[in-house]
Amino acid sequence: MRAYDVIMKKRNGLENTKEEVEFMINNYVSGELKDYQMAAWLMAVYFNHMTDEERYNLTIAMLNSGDRVSLKDIKGKKIDKHSTGGVGDKTTIALAPMVASLGLSVSKLSGRGLGHTGGTIDKLESIPGYKTALSTEEFIDIANKTGIAIAGQTANIAPADKKIYALRDLTATVDEISLIASSIMSKKLAIDSDGIILDVKAGTGAFMKDIQDAKTLAESMVSIGKMNGKNMKALVTNMNQPLGMKVGNALEVYEAIETVKGKGPNDFQELCVELACYMAELSEEMSYEEAKEKLNKNIENGTVAKKMKEWISAQGGNSEVVDDPNLLTISKNKKEIYAENDGYIFNFDTEKIGIASMMLGAGRATKEDVIDLSVGLEVHVKLGDKIKKGDKIVTLYYSDNSDLKESEKTIKNAIKISDKKPDEFIVKTIYEIID
Amino acid sequence: MRAYDVIMKKRNGLENTKEEVEFMINNYVSGELKDYQMAAWLMAVYFNHMTDEERYNLTIAMLNSGDRVSLKDIKGKKIDKHSTGGVGDKTTIALAPMVASLGLSVSKLSGRGLGHTGGTIDKLESIPGYKTALSTEEFIDIANKTGIAIAGQTANIAPADKKIYALRDLTATVDEISLIASSIMSKKLAIDSDGIILDVKAGTGAFMKDIQDAKTLAESMVSIGKMNGKNMKALVTNMNQPLGMKVGNALEVYEAIETVKGKGPNDFQELCVELACYMAELSEEMSYEEAKEKLNKNIENGTVAKKMKEWISAQGGNSEVVDDPNLLTISKNKKEIYAENDGYIFNFDTEKIGIASMMLGAGRATKEDVIDLSVGLEVHVKLGDKIKKGDKIVTLYYSDNSDLKESEKTIKNAIKISDKKPDEFIVKTIYEIID
Repeated sequence: MRAYDVIMKKRNGLENTKEEVEFMINNYVSGELKDYQMAAWLMAVYFNHMTDEERYNLTIAMLNSGDRVSLKDIKGKKIDKHSTGGVGDKTTIALAPMVASLGLSVSKLSGRGLGHTGGTIDKLESIPGYKTALSTEEFIDIANKTGIAIAGQTANIAPADKKIYALRDLTATVDEISLIASSIMSKKLAIDSDGIILDVKAGTGAFMKDIQDAKTLAESMVSIGKMNGKNMKALVTNMNQPLGMKVGNALEVYEAIETVKGKGPNDFQELCVELACYMAELSEEMSYEEAKEKLNKNIENGTVAKKMKEWISAQGGNSEVVDDPNLLTISKNKKEIYAENDGYIFNFDTEKIGIASMMLGAGRATKEDVIDLSVGLEVHVKLGDKIKKGDKIVTLYYSDNSDLKESEKTIKNAIKISDKKPDEFIVKTIYEIID
Repeated sequence: MRAYDVIMKKRNGLENTKEEVEFMINNYVSGELKDYQMAAWLMAVYFNHMTDEERYNLTIAMLNSGDRVSLKDIKGKKIDKHSTGGVGDKTTIALAPMVASLGLSVSKLSGRGLGHTGGTIDKLESIPGYKTALSTEEFIDIANKTGIAIAGQTANIAPADKKIYALRDLTATVDEISLIASSIMSKKLAIDSDGIILDVKAGTGAFMKDIQDAKTLAESMVSIGKMNGKNMKALVTNMNQPLGMKVGNALEVYEAIETVKGKGPNDFQELCVELACYMAELSEEMSYEEAKEKLNKNIENGTVAKKMKEWISAQGGNSEVVDDPNLLTISKNKKEIYAENDGYIFNFDTEKIGIASMMLGAGRATKEDVIDLSVGLEVHVKLGDKIKKGDKIVTLYYSDNSDLKESEKTIKNAIKISDKKPDEFIVKTIYEIID
């Protein structure tokens, strides 16, 4: 087999076989296939896309390049959850105790943030004492004791994806659905869960700006997961505004704590509950309706908050933050931003809001940056809200190292006030549900 | 400027600026731009093509990467001629004395053959004593004395094209019109002729199988040449059968000699005369009609043959071959191939005929191969000829090193006899004329 012929086939709009896809991936990882041939193939994929079979074969070839994580020593059904990333996305932190309260096990390996979106592991480190680096034994032990363990990813998962992603990033071949879907799924399938729920963000703060593109990506990932024998579901959800009200690390944990008590912002509360109930359904332990009834009860009677405390304690954190989130370190330096006109909140450039938070110090522009867990921002308005000139719309929480001026300017440019109301559909929390 | 952005623009169907194209080419030659980014850009060009401006800028950037050849010390108008390559294409050898007999100067730097097509320099070496390696002084001196000098190319012309072509050859990005046109023209514009005539071959033995594609390529090259201020013309000509009857090195020189005397095969005689007259017209020294009248007279009264002798002599060759082409060394080992049915010659797989000749030893499969100037083949039939079973259709001239069996098999598969006559248009020598 010659790489030339594999490239030519793809370029001419034909389907690459399993053997051809494996040939490209395996030889690229081993270094026998040169960067330039992989780059040409990736660009041909960008233009001609991939069939379901090709995507699946690409996913599995990349998956097979690395380690797999076994959860077999952890009791209970394990449904993994993946978000494609957004601004203010603290979902895992509130969702985990909800799902555990339904009797499922949440054993999650998460990442750090880069660019305009944050990472769960960074956020959890704002809880005093919380240990994100666990040995395999500790991880299994905590998961079995409390039903929840969330730690940093250390296994060598899908190195082929890592190498190919780095090349895509230099050759303008990142934004192709097949390549994105295969990249995500090659990492998710490395963990032997009983099912996966995908939260595919769509909108101005998401990688997928367009809802239709997000839907196509979701369908593609669901298809790959099903071909691998997993129970799958995907929600396409709103990233046309920050999720909830708070963006930052300690700030987001604060909001997650409110939410496990049923006092979260409407959109975030709704998203967590829906995801939890669909995860329960995917586990085949109960129906969506049964889960909904039980979860609402658990939130109300404090079972979910109790679960959260058990989990935080088991991972070495100060569980008192759940009773009193003011124990979290949030900067005392505040700067308020006010509306400059009357009207409706018509549009958020949500990516810019994420960048404004990064400028305050809450996120990383490069992998080497050190973040400040105490800073961030709070929006006081959501899409469609009617406001008056002078109303407080955003609070910035800053430190001496924040680029406050630039952040404020960015925020002001990111929120559009109009005489018109935004389209009703845009305001919804969940745009599409894909099985 | 970042290569990433240049690739992204091209990928998204936008036009690259002059500065962007120069950035890609100059940095690629210097090694600062990596192969993988060039490969991604080339594949994006394959899919999105180039505008006239982009093609021109690419051509000039590649041209500027290398030497230019000055012909200023050579007297007379110089019209260069380029063929995209075909089977049995000995045109330059017969054309040069025709053009010189009209008072123009023919100063040509030619190449060797590779694959199924031969090279002028190889063919000329079958003339005993003919020197293809000339110093600049010798070249100029001979051109001024006889009106003709044809030698091997030694200058470092368009090294950018060389490097990019090697990459295209490994990444399935060879067959894109803009890239082909720019590659050819970057080399042709390095020679300071007064004009260029292009012989763009179309058909089963050509790089361009399709006449429409060949026309598009011709138009593209004419446009690039005109943007560079050159007088330009292109003929799209028949490569659906070998040009003339003979294929090989000494065999083709034999046929060229017949042709300067007006005794060449119809198609080859016609092509040479037409090219010569259009070249005279491009020189602005005379009209096409004046050239035609003069050239026909010169062929008839032996002026063209005399010119050929002067030129061969000046380059150290035995000019007696013009009077007696049997002085050329042509293999005495012959193998005849006969028609297996009655019917019309309906189709030639002309590329296969070139390959059959290569198998006999007349061509190179790789640059390192040594060729045998005495072998080759002669077809006795042309498209549309009515033949009977048992008629002689091809003669193979072989040596002890020929792969005779494989060559014979290839020839048999390459000629299709049918009850139907081929389409009249296909049989024409010149398909299109493009100014």
